[in-house]
Amino acid sequence: MSLTAPLHGVVPPVCTPLDSRGEVDTTSLARLVEHLIGGGVHGLFALGSTSEVAYLTDEQRATVLETVVNATDGRVPVLAGVIDTTTARVVEHARSAAQLGADALVATAPFYTRTHGKEIAGHFRRLHAEVDLPLFAYDIPVAVHSKLSAALVRELAEDGTLAGLKDSSGDEGGLRRLIVELGGREGRAHGPVPEFSILTGSELTVDAALLAGADGVVPGIGNVDPSGYVRLYEAARAGDWTRAAKEQERLIELFAMVDAGPEADMGRSSSALGSFKSALRLLGIIDCGDTAFPQIQLSAESVALVSGLLRAAGLPPVR
Amino acid sequence: MSLTAPLHGVVPPVCTPLDSRGEVDTTSLARLVEHLIGGGVHGLFALGSTSEVAYLTDEQRATVLETVVNATDGRVPVLAGVIDTTTARVVEHARSAAQLGADALVATAPFYTRTHGKEIAGHFRRLHAEVDLPLFAYDIPVAVHSKLSAALVRELAEDGTLAGLKDSSGDEGGLRRLIVELGGREGRAHGPVPEFSILTGSELTVDAALLAGADGVVPGIGNVDPSGYVRLYEAARAGDWTRAAKEQERLIELFAMVDAGPEADMGRSSSALGSFKSALRLLGIIDCGDTAFPQIQLSAESVALVSGLLRAAGLPPVR
Amino acid sequence: MSLTAPLHGVVPPVCTPLDSRGEVDTTSLARLVEHLIGGGVHGLFALGSTSEVAYLTDEQRATVLETVVNATDGRVPVLAGVIDTTTARVVEHARSAAQLGADALVATAPFYTRTHGKEIAGHFRRLHAEVDLPLFAYDIPVAVHSKLSAALVRELAEDGTLAGLKDSSGDEGGLRRLIVELGGREGRAHGPVPEFSILTGSELTVDAALLAGADGVVPGIGNVDPSGYVRLYEAARAGDWTRAAKEQERLIELFAMVDAGPEADMGRSSSALGSFKSALRLLGIIDCGDTAFPQIQLSAESVALVSGLLRAAGLPPVR
Amino acid sequence: MSLTAPLHGVVPPVCTPLDSRGEVDTTSLARLVEHLIGGGVHGLFALGSTSEVAYLTDEQRATVLETVVNATDGRVPVLAGVIDTTTARVVEHARSAAQLGADALVATAPFYTRTHGKEIAGHFRRLHAEVDLPLFAYDIPVAVHSKLSAALVRELAEDGTLAGLKDSSGDEGGLRRLIVELGGREGRAHGPVPEFSILTGSELTVDAALLAGADGVVPGIGNVDPSGYVRLYEAARAGDWTRAAKEQERLIELFAMVDAGPEADMGRSSSALGSFKSALRLLGIIDCGDTAFPQIQLSAESVALVSGLLRAAGLPPVR
Repeated sequence: MSLTAPLHGVVPPVCTPLDSRGEVDTTSLARLVEHLIGGGVHGLFALGSTSEVAYLTDEQRATVLETVVNATDGRVPVLAGVIDTTTARVVEHARSAAQLGADALVATAPFYTRTHGKEIAGHFRRLHAEVDLPLFAYDIPVAVHSKLSAALVRELAEDGTLAGLKDSSGDEGGLRRLIVELGGREGRAHGPVPEFSILTGSELTVDAALLAGADGVVPGIGNVDPSGYVRLYEAARAGDWTRAAKEQERLIELFAMVDAGPEADMGRSSSALGSFKSALRLLGIIDCGDTAFPQIQLSAESVALVSGLLRAAGLPPVR
Repeated sequence: MSLTAPLHGVVPPVCTPLDSRGEVDTTSLARLVEHLIGGGVHGLFALGSTSEVAYLTDEQRATVLETVVNATDGRVPVLAGVIDTTTARVVEHARSAAQLGADALVATAPFYTRTHGKEIAGHFRRLHAEVDLPLFAYDIPVAVHSKLSAALVRELAEDGTLAGLKDSSGDEGGLRRLIVELGGREGRAHGPVPEFSILTGSELTVDAALLAGADGVVPGIGNVDPSGYVRLYEAARAGDWTRAAKEQERLIELFAMVDAGPEADMGRSSSALGSFKSALRLLGIIDCGDTAFPQIQLSAESVALVSGLLRAAGLPPVR
Repeated sequence: MSLTAPLHGVVPPVCTPLDSRGEVDTTSLARLVEHLIGGGVHGLFALGSTSEVAYLTDEQRATVLETVVNATDGRVPVLAGVIDTTTARVVEHARSAAQLGADALVATAPFYTRTHGKEIAGHFRRLHAEVDLPLFAYDIPVAVHSKLSAALVRELAEDGTLAGLKDSSGDEGGLRRLIVELGGREGRAHGPVPEFSILTGSELTVDAALLAGADGVVPGIGNVDPSGYVRLYEAARAGDWTRAAKEQERLIELFAMVDAGPEADMGRSSSALGSFKSALRLLGIIDCGDTAFPQIQLSAESVALVSGLLRAAGLPPVR
Repeated sequence: MSLTAPLHGVVPPVCTPLDSRGEVDTTSLARLVEHLIGGGVHGLFALGSTSEVAYLTDEQRATVLETVVNATDGRVPVLAGVIDTTTARVVEHARSAAQLGADALVATAPFYTRTHGKEIAGHFRRLHAEVDLPLFAYDIPVAVHSKLSAALVRELAEDGTLAGLKDSSGDEGGLRRLIVELGGREGRAHGPVPEFSILTGSELTVDAALLAGADGVVPGIGNVDPSGYVRLYEAARAGDWTRAAKEQERLIELFAMVDAGPEADMGRSSSALGSFKSALRLLGIIDCGDTAFPQIQLSAESVALVSGLLRAAGLPPVR
């Protein structure tokens, strides 16, 4: 489904179910896609950080994207992460994603190397020139260790390089300033880049981002409770901010699962992604909750904690 | 004016006007207090980071606090920053603040030294034991380079050490999680610490913080436009989130002044505080816009930029 | 040439000459290998950070390694960087490197994702289990944003996972502590892991590292002046520390080239790698000094600066 | 004892013994001074980070400095740390230090606030103008969170603002580049600032720093074993680098005490300073090993570990 208007709404970063050998479980993945679309989401983001993209081989990435595109079957747009260190490598992923039927691309600034604003600009421009798909900038300093400046995003929006921004920077004030520069919550349609789409990855402050004028959200825990985020989004669109905030609070309580795995034992990625996948397994959506090696798996105790949070949020486990 | 209920509303961190020799200009400071209270603010925070507290000698700090307390004359509560590296030094500031009539204290975690959660807890507990005034924790990692964890804040709220939190961490998601743990936007009065006051220092997302359940805001640029933040606060309290967001956007446009001074020439503190003080001078509230040495002063060109922003925000300069 | 003893000496991270279209210039690369081996180096490190590995496609990486292995023809050991985000992807590079004839592998901790000591340990163990070549841990926080702890390195050395460490952490004190734990400068042969090889990437303090008991050095600017580093190494081995320090000082003066490109215009990687490649071009060793896209190319003025430094260091340009 | 020549040699940052109520134990402090001078040190640095200066009130700081100056009685120069957030506050400490008889001052860049190279330069120039004592720049990013650039240090050395540098940045490569710019290990006497003194705070790589051309060292653990550092220094001065390195290795083994306190329980400052003070108590030099509140005290188990390390280093405890 091509992007005919600015992307908006709830666009979860789809988890990648793995089997116990670490291979992509396409049956579970298709079920997860159905769960998400059934929950009313407005788009899907495959191969984002939440998909464990950094842990997947190129072949596995292709399997994931193909499965998501096929399962989605045009019902909502599919964005594809093209995550790699620098331009030449990212272009290869982008070509593959285009071939597999992605509707848009999501790329970060270069990483591993020490980069620069001018180089990041060149990077996005080259990507856009090489592969003819709407391009989203993925601002995720916690992963790439540089921050996209508002000036850079605006420049690349205005010259048509970028179709949108996926902001996972956690810098809500900076995002707000960008939105104001682009015309503000009500004036963006008449601003310098009316078609530019702003999606927040800050899943705990979605009501706030929508109030500020963001177009949508890419919530990791939206894998577990897509309907919750859809309700939040619709309340916000209807101007019922109190209801939106209340739904957000319920989702925040659910989100506590990300700390299920103790810091002494595993990385924060293992804990958060492990909790999402455990929840999906407990809900009967995927078959195995394992995260990719070398992440540490959640203990039974941690899984029980996830189970309790699901129950408390009105999402009773089926196993 | 003692804190009989949780502090709420707009509590600007009062700027410290200096004369051209770098001494505290008490006449201008009293005028600024009048400007703020006249603007409808609900409290004043003297000797915060925005006051250039780090640049003031102990004697100057006392002059500032005395002036603010006297000029306020009990109309609103006066919070006093007690900013120093560790407990023994902070206790001295706290005793002085109590003597000078502060209604509450605002203290950071230890800095300069490498500290630890257990040590920070001890620090706040000792402060509370030594000086009998409501104590706010000031979470400002950009200055002290450690972050107060939600667990620590909650522990110190529950045991009565802290009366509130001034959150300048920029971590809106984390703040939201804390609020939810304390009972959420509607349930905090029935939560574990009903009297605990949460003030955000994130002045660009105040509507969002109030929607999330914060009690108030400590906005640096509230020095320049207190009425704007009061309108924002009142709109939020009335549940008119669209009006709140609109007012927030106007304030964000005004906030662009913080970048008036080029990065090549001066620190971000010099630029931001210089712009606030220049604006106050242009509005006729204080006599001299200088910041404390060794900060670099704004150029005439930068001041012209501030002037233009004031005009655009409906605050015409008088000089 | 297999590693029959702990790797030692000067092991430059071989630059990757590109042509003006950005493709690997294998003729120039073979000439560079000849230049290095002719300079007396003790090993070659292909596909390290200095090779712009993060900018090369898998196909280009294979071309580079094949060229280096063939040009080297067994005269010195060839180490191959296997740089990618996590284990599954790194294993693929490692298999390819083994097939292409590398004598050892050099791998970093996982990056892009948020990792953990236990996960890093699993990562190296899996790598070692999957590909039967000596494995060096590459400690480079500036690129991967985590630091290998001394305890972890020691554990992986003692259990036979690691054959050595390439330390580019800049933490000379930490490296020194590790060496002492392993038996110290004189006792390492009788310590817990007598065969473990420690190479420093801190090319400005090589005399110090050798004095401390390191086995060798991986100097980026050793591409330009391999003989200089060989002289430094030999002076150190002969116990003539004054001569070693003097040679080190000459190399530090030459190293000033890394700042040839202004910070306002380009990243530090572009400037440093651009200066090395410009120097190699000026010396007639490679045909084109370009760095990989999207790095910014050095201006003529910057190249002139490089040229002056070469001349001053007794390495007169031939063009 | 005034500084008639560039300061050189071993200049320990004197610990501040406290009694069990947290007050300065001047008797123990005087004994510590005797221990250090008896160990052959070339100067003393009072009120440095190791002295817990950040934990001492102004009155306590004065007591410390007075005690050190009196106990030293002109036998070696006494440097005084003047540690505070910005210029006006630092000038007050500097005046007090001058009055109390310090021979030189040691000041950091501004902290707590966000500063800038131009502001740091102004800061040091004003300090030098206000108080007529040799001024050392204290480069300690771990405490003040900015790094002094080599260009800035050189500029302030050349214009006579700075008499020296105390480098605790851990950036050995950067320090080496600075030394080379100043004429190198042999040529500094004929370089642009022949009298400029460079002291390293990197106590684990002192042999290396001296080989590089540094003038001396400020070793925290030199409180415990001053003679060891003096032997190291003398071996280096005699060109016996092997002996220097061997002594350095012994001191590194002793240094392991800094990790005596577990990370889960206390900050790294508490652990390191607690271990030094415990060692001094075990050696009979000071009466109480407590660190200042709110630092956590070492457990008996941790103290036993310190005791074992002392014994292993040939420094048998007397209690």
